Amino acid sequence: MQKRVFQILADNNAGVLSRITGLFSRRGYNIDSITAGITADPRYSRITIVTSGDEDILDQIENQVEKLVDVRDVRELKPDKSVYRELCLIKVHSTPEKRQHIISIADIFRANIVDVNVDSLIVELTGNQTKIEAFMGLLRDYEILEVARTGIAGLSRGSEELVCLD
Amino acid sequence: MQKRVFQILADNNAGVLSRITGLFSRRGYNIDSITAGITADPRYSRITIVTSGDEDILDQIENQVEKLVDVRDVRELKPDKSVYRELCLIKVHSTPEKRQHIISIADIFRANIVDVNVDSLIVELTGNQTKIEAFMGLLRDYEILEVARTGIAGLSRGSEELVCLD
Repeated sequence: MQKRVFQILADNNAGVLSRITGLFSRRGYNIDSITAGITADPRYSRITIVTSGDEDILDQIENQVEKLVDVRDVRELKPDKSVYRELCLIKVHSTPEKRQHIISIADIFRANIVDVNVDSLIVELTGNQTKIEAFMGLLRDYEILEVARTGIAGLSRGSEELVCLD
Repeated sequence: MQKRVFQILADNNAGVLSRITGLFSRRGYNIDSITAGITADPRYSRITIVTSGDEDILDQIENQVEKLVDVRDVRELKPDKSVYRELCLIKVHSTPEKRQHIISIADIFRANIVDVNVDSLIVELTGNQTKIEAFMGLLRDYEILEVARTGIAGLSRGSEELVCLD
């Protein structure tokens, strides 16, 4: 099972998302995560899809996506030549006594507390999937009430002679 | 034109995304942004869709999404009772002379530099849409090479008696 990150540049109009996701589901291929938003030029949107499966079938899907109306470009974002980031909001149950413990864990991961209530906190964390999963693993000792993850957004690094800062 | 943020909890399987996005496109309704990722319980995924249009038709779409197989829950995330966040990666052209200017702007917005190259930088920013657009407005004086936005992820605030920290 191969994990693959596709980055698609498409015209920003109704229907293109449904055609792209339809290609995956007709093959019975689950989309692990999808993010789509407009680019600097509002005529286009950039769609990032994470999926896993057989390499040959993923190649076929990539070719079919490329041929779709409204799709301008399809690229694979290779882990060693790309920057991936995901944002995660986690609502955790918290009594006043537990609150400081949760805040300490958040500090270590450079996560932000974005909402506080008498019996819950919302924590915002950004990072790659490994970091987010490690963080959620630590929070499991407390009660996780709700999670919203954006899925991955990614860009290719500028060129080969690069410095990764994170 | 009403802007609306839908939050959908659905079974994590192939096909559900395509059925949901298909409902929007058959009405000619553009999805401004979509994010989908698994929840704390891997059987389910949480999908957040931002769309805009006529209020009656948005109500109809909401009802139709609710009736789809695999959809467990549909909620509207109201701006005053929710936390919204988006992550944005921006690749900016930068000469060694300009680099410090861009880093200063990033510092003001608490954005992170996640990749540096001889002639470009990748900046990571999280926030609501207003903040991201203000930041991109300032960077337009430099040359924006590529943008990848995740689209909004959101959670409802714990209850009414809440403190918003951001």
